[in-house]
Amino acid sequence: MPRKNMLAHRTHNMGASAIREILKVVSKPGMISLAGGIPAPESFPMTIIREITETVFAKYGPKAFQYDLTEGFLPLREALVDYLLEKGIAAAAEQILVSSGSQGVLDSLGKILINPGDRVALEAPTYLGALQAFTPYEPEYVQIATDDQGMLPDALATALSQHPVKFIYLVPNFQNPTGRTLPMNRRRAIADIIRQFDTLLVEDDPYGDLRYRGTLLPPIKTLVPDHVVYISTLSKVFAPGLRMGFCLAPDLISRWLILAKQGVDLHTSTFNQALAAEYLAGGHLKRHLPRIIALYRPRQEAMIDAMARFFPESFTWSVPDGGMFVWVKGPEGMDMETVNQKAVARMTAFVPGTYFFARPGDGRETMRLNYTMANEKTLTGAVKIVGEVLEEALMEMTGHRQAASVSRW
Amino acid sequence: MPRKNMLAHRTHNMGASAIREILKVVSKPGMISLAGGIPAPESFPMTIIREITETVFAKYGPKAFQYDLTEGFLPLREALVDYLLEKGIAAAAEQILVSSGSQGVLDSLGKILINPGDRVALEAPTYLGALQAFTPYEPEYVQIATDDQGMLPDALATALSQHPVKFIYLVPNFQNPTGRTLPMNRRRAIADIIRQFDTLLVEDDPYGDLRYRGTLLPPIKTLVPDHVVYISTLSKVFAPGLRMGFCLAPDLISRWLILAKQGVDLHTSTFNQALAAEYLAGGHLKRHLPRIIALYRPRQEAMIDAMARFFPESFTWSVPDGGMFVWVKGPEGMDMETVNQKAVARMTAFVPGTYFFARPGDGRETMRLNYTMANEKTLTGAVKIVGEVLEEALMEMTGHRQAASVSRW
Repeated sequence: MPRKNMLAHRTHNMGASAIREILKVVSKPGMISLAGGIPAPESFPMTIIREITETVFAKYGPKAFQYDLTEGFLPLREALVDYLLEKGIAAAAEQILVSSGSQGVLDSLGKILINPGDRVALEAPTYLGALQAFTPYEPEYVQIATDDQGMLPDALATALSQHPVKFIYLVPNFQNPTGRTLPMNRRRAIADIIRQFDTLLVEDDPYGDLRYRGTLLPPIKTLVPDHVVYISTLSKVFAPGLRMGFCLAPDLISRWLILAKQGVDLHTSTFNQALAAEYLAGGHLKRHLPRIIALYRPRQEAMIDAMARFFPESFTWSVPDGGMFVWVKGPEGMDMETVNQKAVARMTAFVPGTYFFARPGDGRETMRLNYTMANEKTLTGAVKIVGEVLEEALMEMTGHRQAASVSRW
Repeated sequence: MPRKNMLAHRTHNMGASAIREILKVVSKPGMISLAGGIPAPESFPMTIIREITETVFAKYGPKAFQYDLTEGFLPLREALVDYLLEKGIAAAAEQILVSSGSQGVLDSLGKILINPGDRVALEAPTYLGALQAFTPYEPEYVQIATDDQGMLPDALATALSQHPVKFIYLVPNFQNPTGRTLPMNRRRAIADIIRQFDTLLVEDDPYGDLRYRGTLLPPIKTLVPDHVVYISTLSKVFAPGLRMGFCLAPDLISRWLILAKQGVDLHTSTFNQALAAEYLAGGHLKRHLPRIIALYRPRQEAMIDAMARFFPESFTWSVPDGGMFVWVKGPEGMDMETVNQKAVARMTAFVPGTYFFARPGDGRETMRLNYTMANEKTLTGAVKIVGEVLEEALMEMTGHRQAASVSRW
């Protein structure tokens, strides 16, 4: 006691996460990690946090430490009204729901919407955390093909015309893992398809504020508001450890999201919500965001430069306008899990791209590189090592192929 | 769009919470509420919180605001080792899991263990939050009868011999809603039954530290450690708004709880965990707890005294040794929902006990009174009003009965 046969059916789907094992290896001292997906600690507004902590004590006192509404702490929801408005999203404070990270919304959406066997359409590749949130509710995933500009509207329309889906999930800006951003014409095309098929979109936008080049594109939420659950988080622009997410959903969905969340954690930390409220309402985000961008942009540039120098010719990669990741594609037949093991032996790690596909085995020749957690010099060195390991793997692969050709003679 | 038929089957079970509606009414200005289940804000250690906030900034810096392990922030898990040891529970830091309130453990347990139709045994009445956590996973509830000393071991044994259950859920100390505590002989008897049927117990202990009289009883976890998930929280002895819970489970369960939690919120707020670690490790809980008890004990005594003075003779109630609630039982035929509406009209509210039963319609003659949120004078006045409303309801009921008897002649 307890026995494995006690577990619910859904639990067997959850499986041990391979990426979790990788991230454990990566935390070994001395390892240079391009594997993580986490913000640089030096990007956190520590001085501001100390300052607004005092403000919260003075302004709210014990109220910031008491139970609060499941929907969220009202001053934060009010501050989020302006935040969303700058993205072109009009909402009343009462419509905005606060969650424990955007992960909290993904879990609750899965809980209230997904019956076992229901179809969920998502990008190939997609955000791993979304799979971890939805999978316990036993959906079937429908992978929608993507290119350098994200989800292909035609592929989406074809999939929806073949089978209805419970919802579509996508990350419109600087997607995790690819760094890709949906251009305006695709946003419009996808909005049209959503309207045409009268279906629901879950638009997850954690990275939108981390834009290094180009101009803001309006969320799909602004194009078909009644059909979209818009989700975002302060994890990338404030502090991820505070677990501060939020969403704006059609009323019927909101009502059930609240009930689901009540069963999950009653509400998100009041203290952290009060800090977030001050961070936004006090204008601190606006002042601090340029500093985060000034930290990350040169890191991204250093990585892209180093890739151009050190990666084999047969490899291609995204050059995102923002976010935290670069996506790399090797020639057919490359196995990035093996390559990663070799890189780890040289104290450098990345994440094999295959983990980001809903269908097992897809994307074996891809990988995700993160550039937020190391400085330019370290990144250049790490990319050089990965480049060398890729070079070796490529030669080995070509060697095997030649050997295989020879043996056929 | 969206349409109600989009919702998952499980969502229809979740239903709108009647108690939620009551608590909304209760938050009206001027309402004297015996309905809530929340700690007094004046019980929060505000000076200590300000002090340990400084300690956390100095000691952990940005680390307290970064992503962290799903299992929990190690300094908190280490501090919990000593905390649990004082209750007689031996655990290594690595075995302790931190959660977003104890609610977080209840949800994850439901997720990993309950298949639709699985049986869960629980006290009648039971903690409402547990029902809200488990119900989305579609269990069937088996109500186990209770008396003034909590769950009846014989009733439990009978139920288990009729049908296997996935697990048993109970609150051993100062239970919500009844305030009852399982005496030592029952803990032993229940432990024996659990061993005999080789089943799992979820022992939820949020109130154990709030003991006003008598001595600590060892958790059932100490009697059959391999069969028990022990859950507790710092909500009642630190600050509920920080959403700080934790559990100690058999290894197999822990492993899956971690995976479930990863999909739900990645991890609990690092900052709040760091605060909790300092609160425990710095000896602040030990210094502060007597102050909380000194605040609540006289409130409880005032309520009990007032009930003796103002409640009709046909009513009985628990006199708990601790916790936050008194449970009241009226004569058969009383409808406490109607009574509550009348009390609310006089600006005084409580919670009808029927909401705490898994089987709809049970416990209509019962109610839960909370005494932590008002001072002695206010409590006495509120109990007087409730007593008057009960008196009226009783007369009305007896009147109807006499009328009914007469009409039969």
